[in-house]
Amino acid sequence: MTFEQLWHALSPVGRSASSGGYFRQPFASAERECHAWFLEECRARDLEIEQDGNGNTVAWWRPPGTAQPGVLTGSHLDSVLDGGAYDGPLGVVSSLAAIDVLRDRGFVPDRPIGVAAFAEEEGSRFGLACLGSRLATGAMDPAAAAELRDRDGVPLLDAMGDAGLSPALGPAEWLKEVGCFVELHVEQGRDLVDREAPIGVASEIWPHGRWRFDFTGEANHAGTTRMEDRHDPMLTYAMTALAANKQARLAGERATFGRVEVAPNGTNAVPSRVTAWLDARCSTDDAVSSLVAEITRQGSERAERDGTALQVTAESVSGSVAFDGDLAARIAGPSGWPVIPTAAGHDAGILSAAGIPTAMLFVRNPTGISHSPSEYARTADCLAGVDALADTLERLTS
Amino acid sequence: MTFEQLWHALSPVGRSASSGGYFRQPFASAERECHAWFLEECRARDLEIEQDGNGNTVAWWRPPGTAQPGVLTGSHLDSVLDGGAYDGPLGVVSSLAAIDVLRDRGFVPDRPIGVAAFAEEEGSRFGLACLGSRLATGAMDPAAAAELRDRDGVPLLDAMGDAGLSPALGPAEWLKEVGCFVELHVEQGRDLVDREAPIGVASEIWPHGRWRFDFTGEANHAGTTRMEDRHDPMLTYAMTALAANKQARLAGERATFGRVEVAPNGTNAVPSRVTAWLDARCSTDDAVSSLVAEITRQGSERAERDGTALQVTAESVSGSVAFDGDLAARIAGPSGWPVIPTAAGHDAGILSAAGIPTAMLFVRNPTGISHSPSEYARTADCLAGVDALADTLERLTS
Repeated sequence: MTFEQLWHALSPVGRSASSGGYFRQPFASAERECHAWFLEECRARDLEIEQDGNGNTVAWWRPPGTAQPGVLTGSHLDSVLDGGAYDGPLGVVSSLAAIDVLRDRGFVPDRPIGVAAFAEEEGSRFGLACLGSRLATGAMDPAAAAELRDRDGVPLLDAMGDAGLSPALGPAEWLKEVGCFVELHVEQGRDLVDREAPIGVASEIWPHGRWRFDFTGEANHAGTTRMEDRHDPMLTYAMTALAANKQARLAGERATFGRVEVAPNGTNAVPSRVTAWLDARCSTDDAVSSLVAEITRQGSERAERDGTALQVTAESVSGSVAFDGDLAARIAGPSGWPVIPTAAGHDAGILSAAGIPTAMLFVRNPTGISHSPSEYARTADCLAGVDALADTLERLTS
Repeated sequence: MTFEQLWHALSPVGRSASSGGYFRQPFASAERECHAWFLEECRARDLEIEQDGNGNTVAWWRPPGTAQPGVLTGSHLDSVLDGGAYDGPLGVVSSLAAIDVLRDRGFVPDRPIGVAAFAEEEGSRFGLACLGSRLATGAMDPAAAAELRDRDGVPLLDAMGDAGLSPALGPAEWLKEVGCFVELHVEQGRDLVDREAPIGVASEIWPHGRWRFDFTGEANHAGTTRMEDRHDPMLTYAMTALAANKQARLAGERATFGRVEVAPNGTNAVPSRVTAWLDARCSTDDAVSSLVAEITRQGSERAERDGTALQVTAESVSGSVAFDGDLAARIAGPSGWPVIPTAAGHDAGILSAAGIPTAMLFVRNPTGISHSPSEYARTADCLAGVDALADTLERLTS
């Protein structure tokens, strides 16, 4: 089956008619439909399917006589809220298409080739990015994961159970078979546009993390309470959001408040609480710490003036990930693909941190836009991505 | 029955165990329970109940031989989200208690006395404050009201139908019988504290309104999008919220952004849209216009710098309401109660604007806090309120 046929089969699933964006939250119906489609395609290719207790699936092509360890590829099927079609699914679909290309070439690998579909890579439902790969590699404590709840208060295990899974959180069996991991992904920036290259190889992932900022004040009547009598946490938040932007600009780094929840969130009430999540990414671990510390300092200072309080909680912090230099050179070298860094987190970062030689292939993104309904990649570049992945898998399993 | 018995019967209904605040949104279960309790208490007093098609109830005490028109009292039973116990219910409970006081005195009015429970005074569900009284007086077009939806997209008529009501939006029959209206309400400020008076009479309601601010930008990846490539509506909103506060302080008026909704509201996505509601209140109509215009101007200017767009829509605007001076004097005069303005909207303002001589009695609020779980009034002041209302009704129906 061609890449385009696979792509078109998946593209209506979880798509919002109004925005054109995708809502494929983990263990909810659209993402499960994607997962069911993936299982069907794996069965159609006679891949051996392993579903771990964390919601991840790995499907192996193990021709007779292959030797351990295997080469893993794949990505994730879940999306951010109102996200694009490519972030995640492009890697999964390209992996299936690359196997088809290799078989069409008559190639038989001397090592198993696995295709992974990781769960909750975006953290859009349980707040922790790369949840599936973190659990599978032991980077996340299963007991702590069992405490996670979605925005409606549904615990992770219940969500998995409701999706018909039998959760057993913790290190996965399939990991033992993985000698190296190659994840193909749409680029989430314009480096490849600037370099006029359809394909790139990742050098590193910037350190990044999520911090919850809880601003608390005093609920009151919006009409009758004198401005000077207020303790309005919305003002403290607003100033902190502007400070985050300014500090990130000054430092040449990234800081974003993209999620905000207000209580009681009534038009005629001064809020009692504003909770906002900071996403920060920098070129070094130290730069992340300094940036978050400076934003916290400015927010706390303003809180004092507003008579409100600010508490900052780190929800997830991922240190810098340098991908395997030898592997990157082995992949990029023969083709002359540029080797570039990224500020986006990926399951590849988690597997790399777990000591598995890991590489990433990026497919050019004409606008650089991602996590948005308008995220896209040209079909010609996607096809170049499939060929690049097939070539890479062939090189690593010959 | 005493005021305290009535008050305690109502106080657990719709109360959040965690915050201690009230969630009595119109036509939802807690508010309906309050309404059922009200109907029962009216029946227990042999009042003649009129339920109009707008969700309002008026219950009449019509001793034989009374002449038209009647005197209406009462208030509302719904609350803001996580609101206090007093805003609304104090007026309804005090009305029932005042009738009991009058009957204990052996008083028989020469005009009917009505007790009203108005629907959706807070606008907490359908976004338009005083919806019930606006519809009853013809201040709101029934066709426009039928278009209103709550945050879950439930249309007003469906919400009323689900609550077992038979909606018939539009001018109410009971209004024809109303010669004047007196609403008792907890004060939502500290004027009476400063004046050391348990009871006050309203002179006017400040003009006020709600404006929806739609900030639109471009969704993007929070990690990979360079700060300078962003069109982040969160920044435009944050600056506008700070500007609103500053302008209101400078002008000695009130401006609040208490409600915010973000799309897609994901931690790792630059938002595509931030919608926020401005509540503005000033001493004059012109001051409201100038304040909203200045906030809009500053927001639009920032939008230009951010590469975002701002659209401002007036959702409800209420002009200044001067209560009937003669009526206020007649009520306040004999008792020496202070006559004070308020910045809070009330059903009394709607009835007054409809040409009905209207007055308000305020009960002292020790902290001035309202629209908050910590809103309260001392029992002694509440009892003084019941007596004040009984005296007022006696004066107006003798």
